[in-house]
Amino acid sequence: MTLLDGTIAAIWPVDPVAMAEARTHQDRLTKPRGSLGVLEDVAVRLAGIAAACPPPMPEPAALAIFAADHGVHAQGVSPWPQEVTAQMVANFAAGGAVANAFAAQVGASITVVDVGVAADVPAGPGVISRKIAYGTADLSEGPAMTLDQAVDALSAGIEIAGSLVAAGNRCLVTGDMGIANTTASAALICVFTGREPASATGRGTGVDDAMYQHKIDVVRRAIEANGYEEAVAVPEGPDAALRALAALGGLEHAAIAGFILGAAAARVPVILDGVIAGAAALAAAALAPEAAGYCVAGHRSAEPGHAVALAHLGLRPLVDLELRLGEGTGGLLAHPLVSAAVRVMHEVATFDAAGVADKER
Amino acid sequence: MTLLDGTIAAIWPVDPVAMAEARTHQDRLTKPRGSLGVLEDVAVRLAGIAAACPPPMPEPAALAIFAADHGVHAQGVSPWPQEVTAQMVANFAAGGAVANAFAAQVGASITVVDVGVAADVPAGPGVISRKIAYGTADLSEGPAMTLDQAVDALSAGIEIAGSLVAAGNRCLVTGDMGIANTTASAALICVFTGREPASATGRGTGVDDAMYQHKIDVVRRAIEANGYEEAVAVPEGPDAALRALAALGGLEHAAIAGFILGAAAARVPVILDGVIAGAAALAAAALAPEAAGYCVAGHRSAEPGHAVALAHLGLRPLVDLELRLGEGTGGLLAHPLVSAAVRVMHEVATFDAAGVADKER
Repeated sequence: MTLLDGTIAAIWPVDPVAMAEARTHQDRLTKPRGSLGVLEDVAVRLAGIAAACPPPMPEPAALAIFAADHGVHAQGVSPWPQEVTAQMVANFAAGGAVANAFAAQVGASITVVDVGVAADVPAGPGVISRKIAYGTADLSEGPAMTLDQAVDALSAGIEIAGSLVAAGNRCLVTGDMGIANTTASAALICVFTGREPASATGRGTGVDDAMYQHKIDVVRRAIEANGYEEAVAVPEGPDAALRALAALGGLEHAAIAGFILGAAAARVPVILDGVIAGAAALAAAALAPEAAGYCVAGHRSAEPGHAVALAHLGLRPLVDLELRLGEGTGGLLAHPLVSAAVRVMHEVATFDAAGVADKER
Repeated sequence: MTLLDGTIAAIWPVDPVAMAEARTHQDRLTKPRGSLGVLEDVAVRLAGIAAACPPPMPEPAALAIFAADHGVHAQGVSPWPQEVTAQMVANFAAGGAVANAFAAQVGASITVVDVGVAADVPAGPGVISRKIAYGTADLSEGPAMTLDQAVDALSAGIEIAGSLVAAGNRCLVTGDMGIANTTASAALICVFTGREPASATGRGTGVDDAMYQHKIDVVRRAIEANGYEEAVAVPEGPDAALRALAALGGLEHAAIAGFILGAAAARVPVILDGVIAGAAALAAAALAPEAAGYCVAGHRSAEPGHAVALAHLGLRPLVDLELRLGEGTGGLLAHPLVSAAVRVMHEVATFDAAGVADKER
């Protein structure tokens, strides 16, 4: 059995017994029932993920930033030069990016994984080379990856997740770096959700009106060039999912999809960052439907396709602050909220224990 | 000069020069311009508060929970017995409440201040007695407080803020405990914003449909009984603000208003929790209009009046997770977001320093 097949086979549904127990426990705590809103759902989900009530604290957390370049950049879909991908990898390694500051704030580690940067990336502490290609092919002209490349990138993500969990991390956070990767994300979201390019394509890190219309056009051409035709289809089954991921995704999308599968197989929660993670999660859920239960939507980005992806996955984002940076920044900001939700299950007194009168019924 | 007058006189506008400098600095950092969304505004606001760019990290943070009871509880506006206020004070002191768990999560201290609990509260570590009365009078029949009581509560809040800042805290967080205090909040929000009771009154910690209609009625009667008539008025000027606060507020509302004024006078940011803090902030801003600039809206609660108050104050909430607990829980959850926003200003590299190419212009 391949690593991918074995990982998918190891993903069980989240545990309904632990989830029911978590709901019951929440109702005994010294707070009005339901008064922690969405955070009660988060705690219940984490109980289901761990198959334990209370679930273990999701700490320490580890962010993995998967970096890769995109052949579609040649179509002029981003105002940023492609070299910025490699330059930002160096910036992560030097500790100078926003992801570094946010990781320091929430006490998370950062691992940068080169799965497809279009330049040689110097090895260094916290930088791992799993380079599969020097960027993808141009998805607007045909498949971005071969099936083998997609499987290799999925496997890299699975292995990184496995090693981070083996190192003692109890929460994973997805991160990405890849100039032009919102274009590939839009294409993936279209084929996995059946939406039109105009409703799933956004302005990424800042394109003007003309470039935005062009970007929608490129997404439409990519869908057609890969045989998904005008009426975009929803790939069903693992083979079709893999083909769609290879055709329209980036190497970092495939790696993040593997990272999600690896987390789910290890029964560890994975906090999704923005639209790139949302697109990758659609692929992961198409490969293994139960994987979505292991995901926590860290935030909702300004990209319209992100909300489409989260709705399709049935996930409610925790942070909603118009971020559009990527790198894992939105996922990191959500981590203290997830921890706080779980901490309630461990530390808050029950009405009985605290001698607090319950609401009159 | 009284403490209140002196504090109001010491509140200066937030500093426009530091804010402009912060905006310019944000645009030099290795991220697309504006890509941190609302957090860029938070960092700019904190620069204005401190009159420094970058502003100091808002750490450590200190939560003050002001506890008091409400004569209007006798009108049957809450399903919880009044004794719960005192019981929850004991729960905070014992470390068993949600606020304790969240404070531990974000590294904040907790100070509980009894300004008007209707029972004797045992002194203890972290519990301060500044009791002004054993609860307010019933605001639906006349003024809840005398003007002197309101000033005493304001002064208590000012002094607590001052002592927490003197102890080295660089961010204050508002908290409250008081069964029935969403009723007083709704009445305050009506008179300070000119809204009708039905649009500012919510279900608090959980009232049923019949009690909800009754609660709206009680708010309407309170407004009329205190001479604000059918067309609710917006009190202008400090004297009118003080009269409205005394007529319709709780002792914890007045104390929190003082706490906000104290933070503003010390040029320290204050994170507002939910609807009680929102109502208190309206009073603080009516007493000293520049005080609103020192507030950060921690979250948006499920109470409809909270959104009304925040809109009136021009504040955008950071966390929006359907919380309706109070205690300072929503404010605490926002603290890591505020810290992260400021940390970016200290730690993220500029395009020039990191050798990252800027967007093509």
